[in-house]
Amino acid sequence: MKLATLRDGSRDGRLLVVRRDGEAGAPSPDAWPTLQRALDDWRAAEPALRTLADELDRGAHDGLPIDPLRLGAPLPRAYEWIDGSAFLNHVILVRRARGAQPPATLETDPLIYQGGSGDMLGPRDAIELHDPAWGLDYESEVSVILGDTPLGVTAADAGACVRLVMLANDCTLRNLVPDELAKGFGFFQSKPATAFSPFAVTPDELEAAGAWRDGRLHGRVRSIHNDQLIGDCDAGPEMHFSFFDLIRHIARTRRFIAGTILGSGTVSNADRSRGVSCLAERRMIEIIESGKPVTPFLAVGDRIRIEADVAGTSPFGAIDQRVVAAGASSSSSLLSSSSHPGAGAPP
Amino acid sequence: MKLATLRDGSRDGRLLVVRRDGEAGAPSPDAWPTLQRALDDWRAAEPALRTLADELDRGAHDGLPIDPLRLGAPLPRAYEWIDGSAFLNHVILVRRARGAQPPATLETDPLIYQGGSGDMLGPRDAIELHDPAWGLDYESEVSVILGDTPLGVTAADAGACVRLVMLANDCTLRNLVPDELAKGFGFFQSKPATAFSPFAVTPDELEAAGAWRDGRLHGRVRSIHNDQLIGDCDAGPEMHFSFFDLIRHIARTRRFIAGTILGSGTVSNADRSRGVSCLAERRMIEIIESGKPVTPFLAVGDRIRIEADVAGTSPFGAIDQRVVAAGASSSSSLLSSSSHPGAGAPP
Repeated sequence: MKLATLRDGSRDGRLLVVRRDGEAGAPSPDAWPTLQRALDDWRAAEPALRTLADELDRGAHDGLPIDPLRLGAPLPRAYEWIDGSAFLNHVILVRRARGAQPPATLETDPLIYQGGSGDMLGPRDAIELHDPAWGLDYESEVSVILGDTPLGVTAADAGACVRLVMLANDCTLRNLVPDELAKGFGFFQSKPATAFSPFAVTPDELEAAGAWRDGRLHGRVRSIHNDQLIGDCDAGPEMHFSFFDLIRHIARTRRFIAGTILGSGTVSNADRSRGVSCLAERRMIEIIESGKPVTPFLAVGDRIRIEADVAGTSPFGAIDQRVVAAGASSSSSLLSSSSHPGAGAPP
Repeated sequence: MKLATLRDGSRDGRLLVVRRDGEAGAPSPDAWPTLQRALDDWRAAEPALRTLADELDRGAHDGLPIDPLRLGAPLPRAYEWIDGSAFLNHVILVRRARGAQPPATLETDPLIYQGGSGDMLGPRDAIELHDPAWGLDYESEVSVILGDTPLGVTAADAGACVRLVMLANDCTLRNLVPDELAKGFGFFQSKPATAFSPFAVTPDELEAAGAWRDGRLHGRVRSIHNDQLIGDCDAGPEMHFSFFDLIRHIARTRRFIAGTILGSGTVSNADRSRGVSCLAERRMIEIIESGKPVTPFLAVGDRIRIEADVAGTSPFGAIDQRVVAAGASSSSSLLSSSSHPGAGAPP
């Protein structure tokens, strides 16, 4: 089952059930008008949503065309956004770029940070660049939306907590990171709003293609920068800590409520021919190979597109964002149907 | 105006408007059944809520008695919980306790961490202690609930973003902190669920007593541990960064939506006769004075009570929590009206 959120002027948008091909969809039953409401009441909501999904897939219900420009993040505001850093190749490269060592517990203790979750960007929202000196970077990630997750859950039981899978662009302001980490409290200003893919998909959709196993997405995550394919990374085998491992880790001392989003961290492969899922890695490789970074960070006018390839399909749709100058677009209020700068404008 | 949230079996509870003395209250108008809904629509909700508050204060409406045992956190789940560390005396002492130096930018760049916000404890909820070796500590703090807060807001304009003021007990698992900070990504497992005071109060209630000025609460925050007053700290002058400074800081690179909670960090005074708002400070002072810490961290059966004194009144009511062994109480589901272990049992 594939779900999306239509911007309708409300803070949470309107939940849509989407046909498997992503081209058409229908509003969810009125009892669960938003994705959060469905997650709050998943046991009752899921069968009703699946009935509608089946009707769409069988052609018993035509639905209405999906316009990705009108979609918000599946959860336009979420109660938590927690991001792991489960691809160790990324951790090692990015730390080397900062002149820092990977932590001694790299392979046994997952790196996790708590991110801002109140303002999530939709898949076509522009990225406002307020100061080019901040060093804007994209990060292509896999993420999951959790149901209620008890404290102390084991990795073996964590699978039952995963409701939906999607992609994320967890932008980072690279040049704000070192000073912030030096203070010891983790990222804050260096992490602007995160964007999510058009569609959030139940694990069984991916299992059918053998692509959801062991708490990992076994598929490619592609990153296209200004029409150039710069990353085509395998999201599966090199995810050292699976989503189930990450869930066990975060739930050691507290519990999580339905609607919590958990990210994989930047998808990264040791094989350099796979390219990169963020510019910081590419810059680090340039330093290693030629002594200095050549690739600049993202600039106004740049475009970044992130999409998965799972057995030849694109289950989550594409994140496709353009970088705009701050204030350059008609951002108005949090409640406008094009609530983010550049939303509504073709990317 | 004073607001509270009654546990009614739903995830967000029922918004109550509370009489100034905190003894009686009435359900909010049905258009704004929860605090989040009121914050989402504050311009319309506020006048209606104030009308009801006036009726209660004038005696035109009797209301119903408030039972603090039935109250949840004002926001039982919030979209963000961001905690500053604005009392520098606390930063210096706690870092010394960890053998760490305060950051070089201590006085110019606020320390901030992003906390978990999906599961907020009510004022009488028990604190489950899963492993005494984790070193459970309380932290008495002032916090504010924000309305929609634009990116780039100045400190001068930040006052208009503050909707409500309340107290927090931002528990910390002290012995999990060093390893977590060594990894460089900030706190995560070391921060279990945070508890909040029964009442969230509009700034004008405090301004009338001269107690809300310059983005600071000018009043005392008292901490009582097992019937012993161990802290009676002034929350005003030594808050180096005001809430307005903290808002400016957090909004540098992103915006925040209504319902975001922002904390002051542990209230702390350089004058040691004021006592402490967390046990880590007391232990550090013991180390300085006698070479080793004497005060243990919180143990099962301990009780911690946190309350403000503003011109002889207790505007926020009391946080009053007992520490219980994990699984010792009848915690059941997230949706039960006593959704947290020990809730419903007199502390």
